[in-house]
Amino acid sequence: VISNSTRFFCENNLPQAGFYRPNEGVMLPPGSFKNKVAFITGGGTGLGKGMTGTLSALGAKCVIASRNVEVLKQTAGEISNQTGNEVVINNAAGNFISPSEKLSANAWRTITDIVLNGTAFVTLEVGKQLIKAEKGAAFLAITTIYAESGSGFVVPSASAKAGVEAMCKSLAAEWGRYGMRFNVIQPGPIRTKGAFSRLDPTGMFEKSMIGRIPAGRLGTAGEIANLAAYLCSDYASWVSGAIIRMDGGEYVSMAGEFNDLRKVTKEQWAMLESMIRKTKGS
Amino acid sequence: VISNSTRFFCENNLPQAGFYRPNEGVMLPPGSFKNKVAFITGGGTGLGKGMTGTLSALGAKCVIASRNVEVLKQTAGEISNQTGNEVVINNAAGNFISPSEKLSANAWRTITDIVLNGTAFVTLEVGKQLIKAEKGAAFLAITTIYAESGSGFVVPSASAKAGVEAMCKSLAAEWGRYGMRFNVIQPGPIRTKGAFSRLDPTGMFEKSMIGRIPAGRLGTAGEIANLAAYLCSDYASWVSGAIIRMDGGEYVSMAGEFNDLRKVTKEQWAMLESMIRKTKGS
Amino acid sequence: VISNSTRFFCENNLPQAGFYRPNEGVMLPPGSFKNKVAFITGGGTGLGKGMTGTLSALGAKCVIASRNVEVLKQTAGEISNQTGNEVVINNAAGNFISPSEKLSANAWRTITDIVLNGTAFVTLEVGKQLIKAEKGAAFLAITTIYAESGSGFVVPSASAKAGVEAMCKSLAAEWGRYGMRFNVIQPGPIRTKGAFSRLDPTGMFEKSMIGRIPAGRLGTAGEIANLAAYLCSDYASWVSGAIIRMDGGEYVSMAGEFNDLRKVTKEQWAMLESMIRKTKGS
Amino acid sequence: VISNSTRFFCENNLPQAGFYRPNEGVMLPPGSFKNKVAFITGGGTGLGKGMTGTLSALGAKCVIASRNVEVLKQTAGEISNQTGNEVVINNAAGNFISPSEKLSANAWRTITDIVLNGTAFVTLEVGKQLIKAEKGAAFLAITTIYAESGSGFVVPSASAKAGVEAMCKSLAAEWGRYGMRFNVIQPGPIRTKGAFSRLDPTGMFEKSMIGRIPAGRLGTAGEIANLAAYLCSDYASWVSGAIIRMDGGEYVSMAGEFNDLRKVTKEQWAMLESMIRKTKGS
Ligand SMILES: NC(=O)c1ccc[n+]([C@@H]2O[C@H](COP(=O)([O-])OP(=O)(O)OC[C@H]3O[C@@H](n4cnc5c(N)ncnc54)[C@H](OP(=O)(O)O)[C@@H]3O)[C@@H](O)[C@H]2O)c1
Ligand SMILES: NC(=O)c1ccc[n+]([C@@H]2O[C@H](COP(=O)([O-])OP(=O)(O)OC[C@H]3O[C@@H](n4cnc5c(N)ncnc54)[C@H](OP(=O)(O)O)[C@@H]3O)[C@@H](O)[C@H]2O)c1
Ligand SMILES: NC(=O)c1ccc[n+]([C@@H]2O[C@H](COP(=O)([O-])OP(=O)(O)OC[C@H]3O[C@@H](n4cnc5c(N)ncnc54)[C@H](OP(=O)(O)O)[C@@H]3O)[C@@H](O)[C@H]2O)c1
Ligand SMILES: NC(=O)c1ccc[n+]([C@@H]2O[C@H](COP(=O)([O-])OP(=O)(O)OC[C@H]3O[C@@H](n4cnc5c(N)ncnc54)[C@H](OP(=O)(O)O)[C@@H]3O)[C@@H](O)[C@H]2O)c1
Repeated sequence: VISNSTRFFCENNLPQAGFYRPNEGVMLPPGSFKNKVAFITGGGTGLGKGMTGTLSALGAKCVIASRNVEVLKQTAGEISNQTGNEVVINNAAGNFISPSEKLSANAWRTITDIVLNGTAFVTLEVGKQLIKAEKGAAFLAITTIYAESGSGFVVPSASAKAGVEAMCKSLAAEWGRYGMRFNVIQPGPIRTKGAFSRLDPTGMFEKSMIGRIPAGRLGTAGEIANLAAYLCSDYASWVSGAIIRMDGGEYVSMAGEFNDLRKVTKEQWAMLESMIRKTKGS
Repeated sequence: VISNSTRFFCENNLPQAGFYRPNEGVMLPPGSFKNKVAFITGGGTGLGKGMTGTLSALGAKCVIASRNVEVLKQTAGEISNQTGNEVVINNAAGNFISPSEKLSANAWRTITDIVLNGTAFVTLEVGKQLIKAEKGAAFLAITTIYAESGSGFVVPSASAKAGVEAMCKSLAAEWGRYGMRFNVIQPGPIRTKGAFSRLDPTGMFEKSMIGRIPAGRLGTAGEIANLAAYLCSDYASWVSGAIIRMDGGEYVSMAGEFNDLRKVTKEQWAMLESMIRKTKGS
Repeated sequence: VISNSTRFFCENNLPQAGFYRPNEGVMLPPGSFKNKVAFITGGGTGLGKGMTGTLSALGAKCVIASRNVEVLKQTAGEISNQTGNEVVINNAAGNFISPSEKLSANAWRTITDIVLNGTAFVTLEVGKQLIKAEKGAAFLAITTIYAESGSGFVVPSASAKAGVEAMCKSLAAEWGRYGMRFNVIQPGPIRTKGAFSRLDPTGMFEKSMIGRIPAGRLGTAGEIANLAAYLCSDYASWVSGAIIRMDGGEYVSMAGEFNDLRKVTKEQWAMLESMIRKTKGS
Repeated sequence: VISNSTRFFCENNLPQAGFYRPNEGVMLPPGSFKNKVAFITGGGTGLGKGMTGTLSALGAKCVIASRNVEVLKQTAGEISNQTGNEVVINNAAGNFISPSEKLSANAWRTITDIVLNGTAFVTLEVGKQLIKAEKGAAFLAITTIYAESGSGFVVPSASAKAGVEAMCKSLAAEWGRYGMRFNVIQPGPIRTKGAFSRLDPTGMFEKSMIGRIPAGRLGTAGEIANLAAYLCSDYASWVSGAIIRMDGGEYVSMAGEFNDLRKVTKEQWAMLESMIRKTKGS
């Protein structure tokens, strides 16, 4: 069994992290992906490597993808020659932090090309072949929690990832009749070299991220891999068009207007309560 | 013309607030609500008072509502006796901050009753009468930006307001054929006595709220009133089932994962950029 | 092992249903819930029974809940006396179809009380005890796909379920620091006696529902149970504040404006394409 | 004054359309955009022409945009030389219906380039100049209701428009401090030559669209123009990061699972009710 582990215990963890220990052991029954082919873009590093490890351990023949169009066409052909439903994971991506006023048209286009167009080309190419071969498949895309809300300083990525989500929901509706399912995982922060070297190069940002994650820790590649394996398995054959957040609660914690009140102490609450109770009228 | 003004310039405003001066003058053409009756719950204070002022200035006959069921039935009857489409604004609400573990079942129920059931009873009662009288109407509900994301420390309010939004979207679909439209405004923070005495009794919270609002200031009742008047007017006769945020950008600013990078200085960005450019591989 | 199976093969299934066979076998490794107590409201019938069966098979001690407050307090006490994280599933609900103009205030309140207040009381009561006992837990609520969009003809249920979702997102943020996770499953249509007798009493509606589900079939209790077990297990310890749709793609299929074009034949597409290609300008 | 009117009364209108007559008269006070420059992409036809007409009538100097980069830079320069806040409307788009399996990589890229990259390049270029000139502006993008849900048969457009929305929410957060606001209108179906010739070339689709719009009619360019003018005016200076649907209620009507029950007659409801009342247990 290939290990998925990413480092997650660190000095910045909050005390409650003990309640949220990751279980990265392979979750699905052995052989769940026997005789299946899984095509994983960006499968050689980070989260992609984790998913490749887990699917392999479960019996899948994994193909790690390139964006070279010829290789892609060939792989797509191979996938559609197999029996049984297949798995396609769009995980490759490019991203970096920058004030938007510093972005050149070229920088913008690079991200759109990798993230949105890259995912689309893989999906359209494989999909066409599957339709011809009359075969179903489970598609999964890895986006991010800020695809939904948008975020400053990663605007090309936010836009392209939102595009990927819309594509998956659209095709879940349109191509369902051909036996294809489309789902999305939105990970919160997980320490991979690719992500963290371009999003938190100095490591300064990590502490404040962990500070607002209710689970009090970063995520791990193995956890993503188990969720991904579930979504691509027959256990999830009735899950399609779903967008699933896995982020230790970070998103809801950031977005909720009054969540900063977690800093209020017991004594302060007692005082606040008595002030509020005295309030009359509007 | 009745003044809607709530105090908004304060020492906590950010420098950019100068770009976002509120225009609280009545926006719609005079007489836009001539011969119309507007029913406004909680219309005697705060935002409700602002909307009442604006609609009156535009020619509406305003009825400020009570939750007394008899009064309600009578008002509903009156509304449906008028000619022309009418206006119903569900603005009344109750709320206070508290750790959820301190909430009694009774506290929970009080908020559900005012916010969700109260809005439902007004809406069902008026709606039934309008259907009988074969009259259309524009309904508007005032919820909050945390209805969408949820928020700790105001959980009964978040839940009940989310319920109100679902009700409005549901009835926009179901009762549209009877000529009724349903829309929602989600205000961000606006200094009214009712809201701030129960949500920020010490005034400590205000500064940090303003600090994350891209517009750099709180909102005003007059701005809400102009948007409300638009949504209830014939100019918006094709707007239904819409949820409209008016919050100076606070929601997207909180929810976006990398927005804290606004604290990074120019010099730090230069350093970060050079580190990122040196990164190779994943 | 208790069987979860609900009937799902039926004459109304679409041809593609063959691609989407449900796998209702227990998915998680044996013993995943050993030494855990699971509290399941409405656990005696339908989806609740399915989840109870699966969790039991995985080693959980299951407690099927009542709304009797005394029983509730006692159960909550028991749960917090156990070791390890615990499981609380808010599954009980009430619902029926009706034109909204036929709803009495009493009918509205009944649904609010069961669905929103009932869930809140269970959650607050159990949560308080867990905080006192310094124990974590995984909470799960079962809502519905129309909690998000709203829906006519089930308005009290739509509103109350939306409230439940906001509550879960709120507490994921607020109570995360105490070791509690909160997630939601939104099921699409699954034939249970409780749901279908009140939502499709004549059976007329079923065919059109299946017709718009990309998977071409209804869901099953066993599928929900496997997803529920995953979300309540340690494999999902980094999932919190998530809302997960399991509906065979029904929601995205209904909501997308151009999805009705699936009725267009190959020949018609050829004609449409040639017309579009001839179009010039705007 | 340029007329905004698009044909909207047609034989397909539903009876309730009488309740929802469009008011296309200019809504804002005369001179609301005096001394302002408005830059409108695609401003020569359809909705863009409508917005141009309304803003001109209100005193704006309108510049209709091209995608030629040199022209763009020059216009951006001009805009930032004016006094007062300015207006930038990203309205240009490309779209056509097609089964996704018939899309070439080239077709996909064409739409991404016009809709997502085109909008990004305009926005980045103008934004940079405004920051340098220390001037604020109101940005508005026109997307579509299926940007949120996705939709089959228009997948490149759905993806690119979702990207545009994420970009607007992101920049609302990031560039708010420079005095720039970003908002979005999602129109439902409005008969323009550009849209309808590529989305409903035979006119067959129109009837079923109107049939599910609660307002019982299509929208008009003048209605969009009034909403756009509001959002770009100082009356909306506290609206930023908002996504506003204007669709006669179509979206909520499609998305809600039980809305098809509007076809049930009074007599059938009586029967259904009595069946439901007789149901016992679960
Ligand atoms: N880690 C996180 O915190 C986090 C959070 C949210 C979302 N995500 C998403 O998770 C996915 C995996 O990210 P990760 O953290 O595992 O980072 P990663 O290790 O950098 O993975 C990204 C992968 O994309 C590949 N890739 C990049 N550009 C490519 C191109 N032009 N052609 C082909 N392949 C290309 C990379 O291959 P090379 O090795 O050749 O560069 C790499 O394998 C991404 O979609 C990311 O957006 C990650
Ligand atoms: N101000 C903000 O920052 C803000 C932000 C988001 C949303 N909102 C929403 O805006 C709306 C107006 O709030 P506001 O700030 O203007 O505060 P407010 O002045 O306290 O308005 C609340 C109104 O509700 C009425 N009300 C409360 N409980 C009632 C009951 N049981 N029966 C009848 N009426 C009742 C109050 O009447 P009494 O005078 O009799 O108490 C009052 O007129 C509310 O829906 C609120 O949730 C406000
Ligand atoms: N089946 C579907 O298609 C579907 C789709 C979306 C969502 N759901 C949701 O899934 C959950 C389970 O539904 P189901 O289909 O399994 O139907 P069900 O068998 O009728 O389950 C509902 C459960 O709620 C309990 N309950 C109702 N009112 C109660 C009350 N006042 N006090 C205590 N318990 C009460 C019922 O107990 P009694 O036996 O005593 O009545 C029953 O066990 C519900 O939350 C439902 O909204 C179902
Ligand atoms: N009408 C509807 O039902 C509807 C519904 C939802 C959203 N929308 C959105 O509303 C906006 C306006 O659409 P519309 O209905 O008014 O259709 P339209 O008249 O076709 O407008 C589209 C505009 O985009 C311009 N455009 C297209 N490709 C371009 C390119 N490569 N470079 C520069 N300009 C380009 C067109 O200019 P040319 O004349 O040179 O082609 C045209 O002015 C679009 O964003 C559309 O997606 C419309």
